[in-house]
Amino acid sequence: MNEMKRIALGIEYDGTGWRGWQTQPDGMTVQDQLEAAIRQFTRMDMATTCAGRTDAGVHATEQVVHLDTGLERLPVSWVRGINSYLPSSIAVRWACEVPGGKDGFHARSSAIARRYRYLVYNSPVRSPLWKNRAGWVFRPLDLEWMREGAGFLLGEHDFSAFRAAECQSITPVKTMNGIGIEKQGNLIVFTFEANAFLHHMIRNIVGSLIVVGKGNRPPKWMKELLESRDRSQAAPTFMPDGLYLSRVFYEEKWGLPQREDVFP
Amino acid sequence: MNEMKRIALGIEYDGTGWRGWQTQPDGMTVQDQLEAAIRQFTRMDMATTCAGRTDAGVHATEQVVHLDTGLERLPVSWVRGINSYLPSSIAVRWACEVPGGKDGFHARSSAIARRYRYLVYNSPVRSPLWKNRAGWVFRPLDLEWMREGAGFLLGEHDFSAFRAAECQSITPVKTMNGIGIEKQGNLIVFTFEANAFLHHMIRNIVGSLIVVGKGNRPPKWMKELLESRDRSQAAPTFMPDGLYLSRVFYEEKWGLPQREDVFP
Repeated sequence: MNEMKRIALGIEYDGTGWRGWQTQPDGMTVQDQLEAAIRQFTRMDMATTCAGRTDAGVHATEQVVHLDTGLERLPVSWVRGINSYLPSSIAVRWACEVPGGKDGFHARSSAIARRYRYLVYNSPVRSPLWKNRAGWVFRPLDLEWMREGAGFLLGEHDFSAFRAAECQSITPVKTMNGIGIEKQGNLIVFTFEANAFLHHMIRNIVGSLIVVGKGNRPPKWMKELLESRDRSQAAPTFMPDGLYLSRVFYEEKWGLPQREDVFP
Repeated sequence: MNEMKRIALGIEYDGTGWRGWQTQPDGMTVQDQLEAAIRQFTRMDMATTCAGRTDAGVHATEQVVHLDTGLERLPVSWVRGINSYLPSSIAVRWACEVPGGKDGFHARSSAIARRYRYLVYNSPVRSPLWKNRAGWVFRPLDLEWMREGAGFLLGEHDFSAFRAAECQSITPVKTMNGIGIEKQGNLIVFTFEANAFLHHMIRNIVGSLIVVGKGNRPPKWMKELLESRDRSQAAPTFMPDGLYLSRVFYEEKWGLPQREDVFP
């Protein structure tokens, strides 16, 4: 057995049909599929740790995970070897060796920020080509109102109003670095960057922004929600279909070969 | 029974899993699904005629069809009524009444041009989020060479070299109005506009352009292929996954409520 090494992997997946990231007894999660493919490739059991657990139906253009192994393999071998055992809806994009141990790289705790995207298909008719890939709102949405509402969420806040009951975060205080709301044809692309997110936080924020976008509440309602810290005030959790973990940010010193996300 | 009316419909579909447009005994085609939904909505049998028959696995952002009926329905009722019986991978985008009869609108013969798109995902690793939605080429493609090669196809030509054996067109001579080849992240978007296309013509052209893009043949090979009129010289038919019927062009006088295509 060689000295233990830590390997970081970039993972893309279509979350449709999977029960989220985290391992479940039925094996129908992305983590289960990834670890099964690693087992088939290496004939060894290896536990993986991810940057951000995604819910059932949520996608990733670039999830980041790490694992520890005594095996010696070139990065390209990790990529091709694991991919040959993965279903078509999951792929390893890249692999690289990173420092392990106490001061080493850790997919979750080394992450300094996360970027998620939420796609809303905004049209009177549902879109077959965006099914499972975007939320659908048939009433026209006012981008300016949603942008104004989103502005109240920037900076460091207690986001309890947008937090799921089952959230395990030690604190509801997170820092929202940026929110973008852009139109591309019939799609509205929401981009959220924060140091970290609470469970269901983006889907709860998007649900509330859509209430504002429809004109049912004014933009300053977002401020009232935030200040209430009361989950029962905000809109219901919006559907998972349009949510993508699109980028996890790390310090450059780790040398991860991350790419710019290209979907959509 | 009222006077017969002609109704035009704009149809979007994800062709994955369907056996193409044209009706088949097993009912697993887009036309079969559309006509079954119309039957459930109207309780009458109505035949539909489309602008361009697409192959198994090929998508459409906007196919156009027409049908004749004695029923009186508002356009919005046709859209909502048919959609409520269609599977999630097919949708009616719009409906409108058009002149029927001998000099009336005809989805196929009134079309003055067609636009198809072909998406190629060009990256060493396959993409889960583009599976079934784009062709995949893992070797880097040279856009300039492909553009130069595509230039030889512009204008009126005998396209026999790119014609499937089973093609039913009365002539292999078509006019290519334009070809665009653009990069969007890892995607290469090919756009083809012609008065009409032969069976498999785009997939055969894309297959050959990819041979050029890989550097296996120089751009002028496209000219040699075209002039040979010999199907056996060109590359194999490329996979259907990345092909989209994106727009059918008609004279403005018909007043179709066509939209700009937005996918990708």
